[in-house]
Order: sequence, then structure tokens, then C-alpha cells
Amino acid sequence: MSANSFGQIFKITTFGESHGAALGVVIEGCPAGVDFNLDLLLKNLARRKPGQSSVTTSRQEDDIPEILSGIYENKTLGTPICIIVKNQDQKSADYNQIKTEARIGHADDTWKAKFGHVDHRGGGRASGRETLCRVIAGSIAQMLCQKLNPNIQLKGYASQISDFVLHDEEIKNVWNVDVDQFKTRFPSEREQRVVEWLEKAKAQGESYGGVAEVQIKNMPIGLGQPIFHKFKSDLAMAMMSLGATSAFEFGDGFASVIQKGTDFHTHMNSESYGGIRGGLTTGDLILFRVGFKPTSSIKDTAKKGRHDPCIVPRAIPVMEAMTWLLIADHLLWSRLDKI
Amino acid sequence: MSANSFGQIFKITTFGESHGAALGVVIEGCPAGVDFNLDLLLKNLARRKPGQSSVTTSRQEDDIPEILSGIYENKTLGTPICIIVKNQDQKSADYNQIKTEARIGHADDTWKAKFGHVDHRGGGRASGRETLCRVIAGSIAQMLCQKLNPNIQLKGYASQISDFVLHDEEIKNVWNVDVDQFKTRFPSEREQRVVEWLEKAKAQGESYGGVAEVQIKNMPIGLGQPIFHKFKSDLAMAMMSLGATSAFEFGDGFASVIQKGTDFHTHMNSESYGGIRGGLTTGDLILFRVGFKPTSSIKDTAKKGRHDPCIVPRAIPVMEAMTWLLIADHLLWSRLDKI
Amino acid sequence: MSANSFGQIFKITTFGESHGAALGVVIEGCPAGVDFNLDLLLKNLARRKPGQSSVTTSRQEDDIPEILSGIYENKTLGTPICIIVKNQDQKSADYNQIKTEARIGHADDTWKAKFGHVDHRGGGRASGRETLCRVIAGSIAQMLCQKLNPNIQLKGYASQISDFVLHDEEIKNVWNVDVDQFKTRFPSEREQRVVEWLEKAKAQGESYGGVAEVQIKNMPIGLGQPIFHKFKSDLAMAMMSLGATSAFEFGDGFASVIQKGTDFHTHMNSESYGGIRGGLTTGDLILFRVGFKPTSSIKDTAKKGRHDPCIVPRAIPVMEAMTWLLIADHLLWSRLDKI
Amino acid sequence: MSANSFGQIFKITTFGESHGAALGVVIEGCPAGVDFNLDLLLKNLARRKPGQSSVTTSRQEDDIPEILSGIYENKTLGTPICIIVKNQDQKSADYNQIKTEARIGHADDTWKAKFGHVDHRGGGRASGRETLCRVIAGSIAQMLCQKLNPNIQLKGYASQISDFVLHDEEIKNVWNVDVDQFKTRFPSEREQRVVEWLEKAKAQGESYGGVAEVQIKNMPIGLGQPIFHKFKSDLAMAMMSLGATSAFEFGDGFASVIQKGTDFHTHMNSESYGGIRGGLTTGDLILFRVGFKPTSSIKDTAKKGRHDPCIVPRAIPVMEAMTWLLIADHLLWSRLDKI
Repeated sequence: MSANSFGQIFKITTFGESHGAALGVVIEGCPAGVDFNLDLLLKNLARRKPGQSSVTTSRQEDDIPEILSGIYENKTLGTPICIIVKNQDQKSADYNQIKTEARIGHADDTWKAKFGHVDHRGGGRASGRETLCRVIAGSIAQMLCQKLNPNIQLKGYASQISDFVLHDEEIKNVWNVDVDQFKTRFPSEREQRVVEWLEKAKAQGESYGGVAEVQIKNMPIGLGQPIFHKFKSDLAMAMMSLGATSAFEFGDGFASVIQKGTDFHTHMNSESYGGIRGGLTTGDLILFRVGFKPTSSIKDTAKKGRHDPCIVPRAIPVMEAMTWLLIADHLLWSRLDKI
Repeated sequence: MSANSFGQIFKITTFGESHGAALGVVIEGCPAGVDFNLDLLLKNLARRKPGQSSVTTSRQEDDIPEILSGIYENKTLGTPICIIVKNQDQKSADYNQIKTEARIGHADDTWKAKFGHVDHRGGGRASGRETLCRVIAGSIAQMLCQKLNPNIQLKGYASQISDFVLHDEEIKNVWNVDVDQFKTRFPSEREQRVVEWLEKAKAQGESYGGVAEVQIKNMPIGLGQPIFHKFKSDLAMAMMSLGATSAFEFGDGFASVIQKGTDFHTHMNSESYGGIRGGLTTGDLILFRVGFKPTSSIKDTAKKGRHDPCIVPRAIPVMEAMTWLLIADHLLWSRLDKI
Repeated sequence: MSANSFGQIFKITTFGESHGAALGVVIEGCPAGVDFNLDLLLKNLARRKPGQSSVTTSRQEDDIPEILSGIYENKTLGTPICIIVKNQDQKSADYNQIKTEARIGHADDTWKAKFGHVDHRGGGRASGRETLCRVIAGSIAQMLCQKLNPNIQLKGYASQISDFVLHDEEIKNVWNVDVDQFKTRFPSEREQRVVEWLEKAKAQGESYGGVAEVQIKNMPIGLGQPIFHKFKSDLAMAMMSLGATSAFEFGDGFASVIQKGTDFHTHMNSESYGGIRGGLTTGDLILFRVGFKPTSSIKDTAKKGRHDPCIVPRAIPVMEAMTWLLIADHLLWSRLDKI
Repeated sequence: MSANSFGQIFKITTFGESHGAALGVVIEGCPAGVDFNLDLLLKNLARRKPGQSSVTTSRQEDDIPEILSGIYENKTLGTPICIIVKNQDQKSADYNQIKTEARIGHADDTWKAKFGHVDHRGGGRASGRETLCRVIAGSIAQMLCQKLNPNIQLKGYASQISDFVLHDEEIKNVWNVDVDQFKTRFPSEREQRVVEWLEKAKAQGESYGGVAEVQIKNMPIGLGQPIFHKFKSDLAMAMMSLGATSAFEFGDGFASVIQKGTDFHTHMNSESYGGIRGGLTTGDLILFRVGFKPTSSIKDTAKKGRHDPCIVPRAIPVMEAMTWLLIADHLLWSRLDKI
């Protein structure tokens, strides 16, 4: 029983308030002998970082990960890996107002009702800054997966921002493009218009929602566990544990509803299933989609310019991190399936 | 680590193959002193039962729950409650074909790849018959909730079947109708057309998907746990652990994507949030929605008439059961929030 | 969080009151493909059974295990294995007295204080009859271990009953004798005197304590997990979870206290360490010892003849079962140690 | 499933290698609103500290706890509390020898067999330095218990060091003395002889074992959970998870073996039971005893003077910490017993 832990075997526990001394994560269940790749970790952190472009919050976080345990001579030890990031940007005076007054759309009041005593500064533990820890842990998971099964690949991208929607051909093409070349991670020739739209929103204190998709290639068959830890249920849980999410679907998702069974199932192993059948991976391409509501740090209550006009671009590396965590967990778990 | 368990404090473990000796569930963490209500249990089982109407599978399951432990003198003991249902309908010869040949849309092949050795009869453990155990456990959870917090109420219904969609006024009206009076649980004056549509599909070996919604009234504020066991992430996991589900959303869900932040958040505490903010319940009405793909037991491979033309009507009591389980778990968990 | 579960990967949950409908166990995490050996299960149950000789309780339990799930065509499926035993001997009128009056040495009163509502009949869930479920689960664990690592062997025996103590040579000789040939499982030429001593105690309503030992041969090196799931800590927990236990030691145990470090450690890998160093198995013979207090069902409160004058003989197969469970769990766990 | 976690509700996860960057602990499940008492934490750390007297290792650890999360305005937040201690004393050159050569009595070789890749410096994660984290977490548990149930008191002391054994009257008197006034925590007029004995052992590179006892006063009735989390089994597990332990007993322990049932049970609620019956606390004084083998860092392999001639004096605060953790966990757990 742990509110702050994710995973069954490859298990992480995150800790830290956004304006406390530090945030961090303890990773348990990572086998000994995984090569540690600092560059990968730093690259993933940079992709999540606030202030990375004109379409994200201008808040700065110069986050330097410190490895406290579990890695020696550049390899994992099989012991808990703890990595922390000290908090730098602690202008907590900015937040004095919300000590008494809940911010619109934030968890300030529900949290207060629950715990009685809260750290109100910047949302405290409810801050999106917590996702930093998920990206750190997800990077370790990625290192493990790349050792265990180097063929598995992930590709995340924005498929919708406000009412800009990727075309089918653009989605088909995602594996051929470097999504990070697009400020909004919306891989389209039309991206410049999306950029301008969000820059304007940022200036006006406006915000928009969006949809992010992740595709997984070359998954082994049979990952996931029957009944409650199906690959799809764990994936849904992982994604809906992110802030601002309001919807999840995989494969044909809600669109499958109006299909006829005879049509849906004749193209067996097709994309309809989204690479998951009976809760287990089929080995086919997995595709899932997450809906995000407009971010809540909007004008008046938000600090000037210190909000993301749309959270989707920065949510994508976090979704990928959660996906790596899940794959790592189920790859290890599958070692226990047979005699 | 347990593939077959759900819940952290109020924790269930289900077991059983569809054509083995019995299915059952062990419920741990139910406090002592809850009044056992057999009528409620039987009523919930009848609502999930196959063969209950012309729009469900004609397969019969005369399921009699046997209480093996944990209840004495009609009250829970605080010890594990085990309730089983013996399997009656074991014509396993019907399934000889699939011993060698995977059925379309079923998990037969992924399951075989995973475990090597499988009970192929009727899907074995992958059968939807497992949801029987969830309804049993959910009924105990409901008894507990009704003791701890008698105001909490649930209302599940079909909001879409194939391309029949409930109107907004019909949705607003659901708390005033007895959904079980509608064969398809689609509470509309138009229901007769849906019934005919599904009867025809059943006769033709066709199937359709649909959307089921559940509303929760009078929830206390602050249920759910920050970070990984948010009320929304646990709910998503619970729902996506059901067979044939392909999508989940709450509140405005995917529709929130195209709203402006200033619009979305000005009607604070509104339905937009679906009764959950920062992962915690707000005390407002919770509304969530689950998409189901067309059922896979369609003509040729399916036994004659032994399939549900649309699984939504029978999925609704199972979704309610999972919701009760979640509420029970989080009500108990909240006892540990404060000193 | 589960009071009734044991093990991390190979995980059991027991349920049932001694005079309820049935007792049983759900075994999760047993990999698919283990050959089921009914003879072994029945033999282990017979070794634990009351009424097996003149030195055990004359209470009869004709316990027939019913397999409800998880085994098909004589092999495990990788799904939960549920096995139950219906209760036969339900003369609950015998126990009316204790509904209002706690029995000496039993848990009747502490249990009542804890839960408020209890099943007083025969101790309810607190009855030693619950160990039946452990023997069932331990037998499945034994089948798994014998498949994974057929060299591992266990030998349990009474090393002390009242003040009869095995000689060193008798202990050295245990692997050469069939302990079950001794009614009291005290493998000594002097056993006849122990038998007479206990028969007399039984007739008089007297009881005695004792010490049971288990040796494990041919363990692989490196089983156990650092810090909290050391092999020794898990073993201690497993043994002290049995009723009537009051002490645990392994290797030289309390006797190591008065040794000099230079003596103790010079015979490295010796029996001093009891086959465990740093919490991990060394590959050497493991030896541990459990102290049992005199049984509490003594004259006046106990039913006539329905008590064990010394619980040790019947505790030995239960200790072996718990040991198999632990070995199975750690064998599977060790699959996750390295990349 | 976590090798490095202890507790079900009040749950700790420790991390860190003895010569890595830092050691630390994450404490989950501590309710919001507990007053943080830094003095208590520092006092407990000082009691465990190496170099505190002439009878402990002269190795120095100037351990300064840094609170990273979970505490704000001197109260717990209900979020994970992470506290770390940076490692100062990192002369890892001292340990180059053991990179290739296992030290006598240490876990170097079993650990290497298990994980393949190890941090050999000072035992790495297997070092007794890990107990620092337990004392930190135990101090938070103590703060919680003192809020929830201020009457509960603990008293730990050495009841035997080598062959010096406390007299019965000295044991009866422990609640009247300040054990910490005794360098060896052996509260006897004879202590000076024990001190000299250990000083001599330290000079000679010799070591001895001992027995430590803890008494718990004013426990509520009914703590512990039936079956696998009995108070006695959790206690045994907690104690045997400490390095160098080889034996555990409570109440009359092994001595109960030779008593007659009629004698043992007539002084019901007496010390015989050690305050635990049926696995649950009775409200009476709890007394348990742990045997420690002679420490393994003896001459030749050990660094000069850098070993404890007997670990018992420094083990006592760690045993107390583990006991507080257990009490905190079971106090919270008992909130879930009844409706």
C-alpha cells in the first residue's frame, strides 16, 4: 500500500514537494548489471524541462540529478537507486496568496480537506514538478529495456493541440521524423501555426488542451498479466496518474464503438486492437492516446508567463517515461510466467 | 505483486477458470461488523447474469454463491471472506476446436504464448465469466460503503449502443429512472429500436460496441491518494481491466481538449472536472465513461446464439461493482490520512 | 497489505474459520507448467493430521482437498490455484461455553477486543486448523522446487520434547532415518519413553512444549534478499507465524553468544553460520530451531482427549511446508537479481 | 515486492551503500500532522553512532540528517518523508583488498554470487551503516506513536555480553535506570568489568556476542494481525533482519519448552506469554530477546581498531527503532479492524 509507488517488480517511489529541499525517486527491483547512461538521462530531462521553448512556461528549472545510491562503476548494483534533484527556484513569496485562497483548477482545496496540513507553495507535492522524478526513473527503465530487448522503440507526439489535428498521413509518418524538432511536438508542416497560436495564448494568459499519442514498436508477445494487470489497465493507470489528463484510449478506442463486430474483427491483429488482446500484447504496434484538459495556471491567478499554454508538448516525455517503466516492469514480470 | 488482486486495503483476489470446478473471490481487509445482505448480492448477480433477456447471450449460468468464510451470524468477521460459485455449464466438448485454433478477437493465442500450458475451454481464466467474482466482491464493498457513508449512490447506464446515443436530457434524467427496467440499460424512449437492433444482431451473429457511463453522487471530498493512486487513475485501471474495453474518460474527457482554459476553469467545480481535481474527489458529481469494442464471439467461431450482441448492458453492473470496490478501498484508506 | 498473505512472488492467502463452511488457500505466482502431484499433497496432509497416533489429539479431521482452479490436465496454469477443505467436524455446541468465557492461553479475548465480532467456535480463524492451508500450499511449493532445483531436500524432526533432548549423534544421523517412523518425530532409540510420557500427559490433560528443527540440504548460494527479506528474517517470520511458537534460532543461535569471534569465524562456512551469511544462503547446510510452549488446550477447558499433549510432532510438517513456501518464493525472486 | 521495504502502512524503504554518496530512507504512510522533533532524532542517532565510547568502534561518522521532503513548518504533510545522510568517511582505498578477497564472516562472497556486480567498499549495501536509516525512520515512528498513544514506552538493554549475564533483579530494575548511562548498555553494578573486558577485546582484535532485550510497556490490547502478521512474527522478522542476529525469543521463549502446560497457563496473562497471545498483544508487558553472534570484523581482516568488540550496545537503539516502526504500523493498521 503506497500512494507514491508505481510498478510491481521494477518499482519506483517518488518524493518531494515543489518548493521543499529536493525531489527524488527510489527505484527498486532494477536488476544488477544495467549500464548507466548519463547522456540519456540528461537528454530526457531536457525534453521535459520548463523554459525549453517559446511555447512552454518561462519558469526555469536548472535541474541537476544527483545519484545517491545503487550505481557503482557505471553499472546498477541490484540495490535501490536513489536520484534526487535539489530545488532551486524557491520564490515561495509568490505563493503567499494561495496559502489562504485556493487556485482555480488546482488541487489546493481538495488536498487541504484531505490532509489538514499542506505545503501550499507552488502546489507542494501536487505540483507537476513531481513528473521530473518519473522521467528520471523512466530513463533507468529505458536503459534496462534496451539491454533486455533492444528492439523495443517508443514514439510520442502531439496528435492534437486545441483544434489542430494531425492528418492520418502525418501520423503514419511519425516514425520517420524527429518529433523533438517540433517545438510543440506536433509533427506537421502546419506546426508554425500551432506555435503562433500557443505563443499568443501564453501572452494572453490563455490555455488549451490537446491529445498526445505514443506508439510502441517491436513489443514481445504476451506482456501484461491477466485480470487486473492487463497491459491496457496498467497503461491507463499510468497515464491517468498524470496531472490534467481526462481521457485514455488505445487502438480504435471510442471509435471502435460504432463498428460492426464482423468488420472490427476480420482485420485481426490489425490496428483496431491497438496491439493488445485479452489484456496481453500481441507483438503488433501498440498505439494509445491521452486527452489533456486546458492547463489551469491561467491569467490572474498564475504568475506572469509562468504557465504552459498547453501542457501536451512537455507531457510527451513524461508519458514515454511512464511507458518505459511499465515495459520494464512487465518484461521482468514475464520471467515468472513459466517454469 | 499479484496479477489477480485489486485494491490496496479492501483487497480482492479472484480465481477460477470458466470451465474448471469453480470461480471465486477472496476479500481481505473488510472490517469486522458489516451487515451481510444476501438479497443485495443475489440482485447484483442477477443483473450481470447471461440469459437475462433477449438482448444477451442465451448461455445459462445458474450461479449460486457459496460463502466459505469470513461471515458469521450475518456479519463480517474481519477475516478473509471467500465466496465461490461452482461451474455448472461445462460442455467443454464445444471448445475442442479452439484447443488447436485461436478464436478471432480472443486471447487464446497471446495467452498460449505467455504460459505455454492453458485451459482452452471457454477461454479458461480469460473468460468474461471471471467478472462474476467482481460482482460478488463489489456487493460486499457496497454493503461496507452503505454502512460507512450511506449517502453515496451509483447510477450506471448505457449512453451509447452502436450509433444510438442518449440525448443530453436523457442523461440528466437518469437519476429519476430505474435503468434496469430497460433491457439494454439504455434509458430512453427510443429503447425499443435498440432492442430490435440487438435482437437482429444476435440472430445474425453480429455484434456492436457501446459506451457505458457511471455517475457517483454524494462522494466525500478528498478521496483518492496523490500521485499514483489518484481517484481517476485507479478508476481508469479498474475499468480498463474489464474485457472489451478500449477507452476511458471522465468529466469532459476528450471533449475538454478543444475548450479554452478560461472557459473550462471559470465554471469551477462544474461538471467539466467530473468531480475529481488534482486526483482527489471534490464532493461534486463524478461522471465517467467507458468505451467497449464490439464483442468478439461472433458468427462461425461463436456457439450459436451464445454470444452477447453488445456487452454494454451486462457490463454495467460489473462497472458498478468495480466502482464500489474502489470507493470502499479509498474510504478505508482515508482513515490513515491524518493523525 | 494483507494479514492473511505470505510470500512476495509465490504468494499464498489462506482463509476460513475452523467451524465455518470450509478452509482454503489461494496460491498466486506459481508459474505455469508445474506437474501436480496429488500423492505428495495427500501424504503431507496425512502427516499433519490430528488423530494420526496415540500422542496426538484424538479429534478427527477427514480432510479431502478440493482443487477449484489453477490446475488443468495435471499441470499448473500460471493462474491462481485455489484448494479448499470442507469442514466436517462441526460440533459447535461443544464451544458454547467459550462464547462468553475466554479459554486459558487462547486468543479468544484478544481477538474479541480487536474485532468486536468473532466466531468463537473452536477458535474460529485463530484455530490451529488454519495450518492445513499452509500444508496444502507448501505442497505446491514443494512440487515447484522439485522441478526447479531437485537437489534441495528438507528434514524436520523434534530435537526436544519436554526434557527429552536429542543427542548430538542422533542429530547427525537424521538424514539416515525416516522421521515419520517415530510417532513423536523424535528420532531416537529413547523414543518409546517419550511416547509413554505424552500418552500419560494426554490422559491427564497435561501438556508439554518442545523444540523442532529443520535442516535444508543443497540450497543454492545467494538466496534471500538483502536488508528486510534476508533468508533468516523471512524464515523467522514464517516460523513465528505458527501458533504456540515462542523462540527461533538458526546455526549456533543463542549458543553463539558466548563464543569468541576468533573461534566462531575461523571455521568459516561451518555450521556456526547455519548456512546463512549476510542474510543470504551460502550453499551450506541450513539448520534452524523453533521453540514451542506447552499447548493451551489442557484439562477443564479442553474437550476430553481433544488436545495434543505436545504440538511439536504435528508442527513439523507445517514447518516444512512454510520452508518450502519460502524456498519457492526466493527461487523465483532470484530470477530477478541480474540482468 | 520490495527487498528494501519494511512495514505495511507505515512503510519505509532504505537505500544507500556505505561508501556511496549518501544513505537514506523514504517513509510512506505517516499521517499528516505529526509534530517533528529534531532533538529526538539527533539523540537517537547519537545513541547508535560509532565512536561513542571506548567499547565501540573508533570509526567516526559525523552523520547529519538532511530532510528532503514530507515535513513543512515542523509537521508531517502525509507525503513521503525522505531523509538522507551524506557519507563522509569514504577512505575506500582501505577496502581494495576485499575487491578480490572475501572477508571472513561477511557477506562479500554470497552477495557477489547473487548480483555479479557489487560495491565492495566497506560492505557496500551490506554494511551495518544501513541501520542509520532505520534509526531515522524509527524516530519518526516514535514521534507518531507518542502522538497517537503517549503511554507506550520502550526500554532496551544488554542482558548478556559474552558470559556476563544480568541478574533477575537487575532486569526487574531496568525501568528505574537510565540505560544510556552504561557504556555497554548492560545496566549492572558489574558493568565496569564488562567495559574492561570489551576494551581488552577491542585492543586484541577479538569480539564477543551478546543478548539484547527490549521491554514494551502500556501497549494497547489487540495489536498485531492474525495469521501472518502476528505481532510476534513481525517482531521476529524485524529483529532477524539486523546483521549478526542469530536468535529471537519472547516471553519465556526456549525456557517455556520444559514447563508443564498446567503451570505455564495457570499464571495467565503472566510474563510467560511475553505480552502476546494468539499473535495479538494482550496489554501486558512485552519482553523479547535477540541473540547476536560475535562481530565478524576481527583482527587481520579488520582495519585497526575499526570494529565493535561486541555489537550489542550499538544494536539496542536500532532494535528500539525497529520496534517503534512496528508499533506505528500496527497502531495505524488497527484503525481498519472494525467498521
